[in-house]
Amino acid sequence: MDPERARVRRLPERGVYDSETVYSILDENILCHVGINVDHGPVVLPTLFGRDGDMIYLHGSVGAHMLREMRGGIPVSVAVTSVNGIVAARSHFNHSINYRSVVVFGNATEITDVQEKLHALEVLTNHVLPGRWEEARQPNNSEFTQTIVLKLSLEEASAKVRVGPPHDDSEDLSLDVWAGVIPLSVVAGEPVDDPDLTSGTAPSPSIQTALARWPAK
Amino acid sequence: MDPERARVRRLPERGVYDSETVYSILDENILCHVGINVDHGPVVLPTLFGRDGDMIYLHGSVGAHMLREMRGGIPVSVAVTSVNGIVAARSHFNHSINYRSVVVFGNATEITDVQEKLHALEVLTNHVLPGRWEEARQPNNSEFTQTIVLKLSLEEASAKVRVGPPHDDSEDLSLDVWAGVIPLSVVAGEPVDDPDLTSGTAPSPSIQTALARWPAK
Repeated sequence: MDPERARVRRLPERGVYDSETVYSILDENILCHVGINVDHGPVVLPTLFGRDGDMIYLHGSVGAHMLREMRGGIPVSVAVTSVNGIVAARSHFNHSINYRSVVVFGNATEITDVQEKLHALEVLTNHVLPGRWEEARQPNNSEFTQTIVLKLSLEEASAKVRVGPPHDDSEDLSLDVWAGVIPLSVVAGEPVDDPDLTSGTAPSPSIQTALARWPAK
Repeated sequence: MDPERARVRRLPERGVYDSETVYSILDENILCHVGINVDHGPVVLPTLFGRDGDMIYLHGSVGAHMLREMRGGIPVSVAVTSVNGIVAARSHFNHSINYRSVVVFGNATEITDVQEKLHALEVLTNHVLPGRWEEARQPNNSEFTQTIVLKLSLEEASAKVRVGPPHDDSEDLSLDVWAGVIPLSVVAGEPVDDPDLTSGTAPSPSIQTALARWPAK
């Protein structure tokens, strides 16, 4: 393993390494993109994740090809990205986006210990919907066995952040072109009841928490 | 190259292959995650992209390590994902998300022809902000040379889509747990003027288009 690989190579002024920044980017997202290398080359797939301390957890079905590959402890890369805005400059060259991203390198390992696996599933659930673990039915033996859970250390994680207005060349400032930032954010809509929902069942606290997490603008 | 690798392996009922679905998922997104394999293993990084017909374009600085690796024509995987909602089931096992994703495999190749490269830059710009190419200053020679542009065919692309309510086990339907979907979407906020903006310059048509593309909910 090469600890240097987590170093941000391009535009290093955008690289930030403190754990709090890494954690905050991970915690404001529910989806990551996982990359592994297989016989025919790289594969990148989206999947949910959870974070607890300096560890992230991934899970999936024992039938999932990527999970089966990963349980062998091969090198993986995991990226998590928040898109915060489009940066419109006066020149195309200086267009950009505002974003907060984390890239992790490491070897994911399968969790086989029952208590650790149950804890990881709780982390995964509560990462997406804080508090949900206590509300819904927990896994039975069959479901538990059908699920592969992997852990990946954040030891080799780095963050990259761009904020603020465009950086135009001084000679472009007088151009008659609007420049600025279009902020983008994720918002939650009104919860949609399952058609089979027992009449009168109201959205539970974890659902209310989710609505506050992604508030309508 | 193995055309079979674009086949969706897991939960094949969620796999859709028609070009229109692939195109629509790509066109509703501006960010992709690109994976390549380097000496120390896989690397996944976020980047902007553009689509024109059956081709996607990627670009970046000649100083960017990943772009320099990719210009050699190595195998890449590109994933684009829309998160449309959180699917809250009565059991943890049946929790899911609603999403629309595309995964592409292939060998990206560098565009060296000037006209083709200029066209690709226009596609990249207008993919993020339709109409912007005509509004802002186009690349000068130095900027043009500093930018690597790559193309990747969508020949080996597949889409995966999940929509709708949770699929709970029948014996869980009577549990007193709220189940349903929390819709998630991306919205644009009010454009923020660049501090150096010439007084009176109003947001241009491409900016208005962007506000309509990600309307406030």
